[in-house]
Amino acid sequence: MPAKTREIHLRSRPVGMPEAGNFAIAEVELRDPGPGEVLVRNSWMSVDPYMRGRMYDRPSYVPPFQLGEPLQGGAIGRVEKSNDPGFQTGDLVQSFLGWREGFVAPASALTKLPATGAPPQAYLGVLGMPGMTAYSSFHRIGEPKAGDVVFVSGAGGAVGATVCQIAKIRGCTVVASAGSDAKLNWLKGVGVDAMVNYKKGDLLENLKAAAPNGIDIYFDNVGGDHLEAALEVARPFARFIECGMISIYNASEPPPGPRNMAYVVGKRIKMQGFIVSDFMDMQPQFHADMGAWVKDGKVKWEETVEHGIENAPKAFLNLFTGANTGKMLVKLD
Amino acid sequence: MPAKTREIHLRSRPVGMPEAGNFAIAEVELRDPGPGEVLVRNSWMSVDPYMRGRMYDRPSYVPPFQLGEPLQGGAIGRVEKSNDPGFQTGDLVQSFLGWREGFVAPASALTKLPATGAPPQAYLGVLGMPGMTAYSSFHRIGEPKAGDVVFVSGAGGAVGATVCQIAKIRGCTVVASAGSDAKLNWLKGVGVDAMVNYKKGDLLENLKAAAPNGIDIYFDNVGGDHLEAALEVARPFARFIECGMISIYNASEPPPGPRNMAYVVGKRIKMQGFIVSDFMDMQPQFHADMGAWVKDGKVKWEETVEHGIENAPKAFLNLFTGANTGKMLVKLD
Repeated sequence: MPAKTREIHLRSRPVGMPEAGNFAIAEVELRDPGPGEVLVRNSWMSVDPYMRGRMYDRPSYVPPFQLGEPLQGGAIGRVEKSNDPGFQTGDLVQSFLGWREGFVAPASALTKLPATGAPPQAYLGVLGMPGMTAYSSFHRIGEPKAGDVVFVSGAGGAVGATVCQIAKIRGCTVVASAGSDAKLNWLKGVGVDAMVNYKKGDLLENLKAAAPNGIDIYFDNVGGDHLEAALEVARPFARFIECGMISIYNASEPPPGPRNMAYVVGKRIKMQGFIVSDFMDMQPQFHADMGAWVKDGKVKWEETVEHGIENAPKAFLNLFTGANTGKMLVKLD
Repeated sequence: MPAKTREIHLRSRPVGMPEAGNFAIAEVELRDPGPGEVLVRNSWMSVDPYMRGRMYDRPSYVPPFQLGEPLQGGAIGRVEKSNDPGFQTGDLVQSFLGWREGFVAPASALTKLPATGAPPQAYLGVLGMPGMTAYSSFHRIGEPKAGDVVFVSGAGGAVGATVCQIAKIRGCTVVASAGSDAKLNWLKGVGVDAMVNYKKGDLLENLKAAAPNGIDIYFDNVGGDHLEAALEVARPFARFIECGMISIYNASEPPPGPRNMAYVVGKRIKMQGFIVSDFMDMQPQFHADMGAWVKDGKVKWEETVEHGIENAPKAFLNLFTGANTGKMLVKLD
């Protein structure tokens, strides 16, 4: 382990679409771990759309990133040195301590990965926060029943692709939207019933063709035009799982909302936002179900991997151009 | 009872704001009741904002009104002749058989009013559909807790004014919006804590001043700018009860929706539409609670009364100019 480690700082707050210049790479000293502390070298870093929200300086459910400080994000690493009896050199651990190559932290900030045979980075994807996000909200807010028609926007991403597969396991018909035929073909391969490429033609017309009898559940990663189209085709008592609105995260002026909000009344729609930590009571069930589904090959995933911490900002920027298929990761060793 | 009776027909479908010319008054024959039928002379007719939706020719939760047919609406009347053992001449009955002075119908289409001492027209208001609308959704969707801050838009109407008072009974702080100081003064008199006159100054600024710590429940009768303002001041986990959007019922072009829909995600808001029949399981509890509250003077109401069936269209049009305070009624005898 070198005495120095690199980390990604927020240099300036993006206005509109983030740019490389909003980020800086810094080299800092790594001190030796004190009593009860552990030194970890990260192997994988998670790159997630919700991080965009923390780049605004405004009150929110998680505090904003601070200028000149490392960005926070999930990571998988290996213990290099432990002064805590709970961790041994070589243990694979998960942390949420920032975009860094290495760090020293109290043992309480680390979680040991279970030995399930799944690749470690899966704990940043289907077996981790994105998987839990999909699993918890789809069941808790979506209240799926076999035969329901489920529309998933941003279905090429880590959360969306997981929702599609859980919905199929629950006996639903699944309509997915994504921005490339490659993503949609992958989704077709895991059982998705109908595909909408939102970059081709009229979204609403394509959605109507893909879901001619309407939808019962909308899993929203996109907002904007997708939300308006989903309201248009929703059946009575539809449930809208409001996970994210990536279409407006980078808008410098907030765009007008759906013109058809009156359907919320007339169709008796339930629309609910959440963040994954709201549903932590579901974590044991998530681990049991998702562990089994991954083991049995019922839930698959794709990864888009950038190499080296210096490419983490690029990986983040690519989230907003749709360059990633599945989970966006940075590999560090 | 004359052999003839008058009724209000829909002559043409309104485009935008309804006009007197959209309605016609017709005189028709009243036949004698057959076996199991009852002849009723109406005393009170209910005039309700949701009727606007049924004037569009489009699929909805209730079928559209037909051109040349009587409008449907709630009414209270008195039995003049009964061929059914369940009803006697002189019984006060509630029906939903249209805007008519009199009618003949099967006994199964009538409900006898209970003898509670409340004035009969209260069964078209706090003790009837508007009261049940307020009671059921406020509890079922709003999930109120003592100490919650509740914002009610369109609070001068029959449903809104009832919600305000139920919220006070449940220990909430209540902020009401209405379009006249007279309405707001009445609401102040029944215990509402803070008032917003949406015709004076900036709605959002006034709402922020009235609810400086934000809101936990929004009861929406208005949509549009009120919905956007409510999203802005909502606290985390706020519940939005989507009862109506009178601000857009008459729009010939759908107006843009709230620009701040992203708060649904970030603040984990639950927004849910309904119609009163979704919650019929709550009716016994509603009758018990509301009956007691009315008897004890804990729930009060106002009425705006037009006289004569020929003035029913005018009463309906006045709903959209805010001319009514409380329940809008037409008195027929």
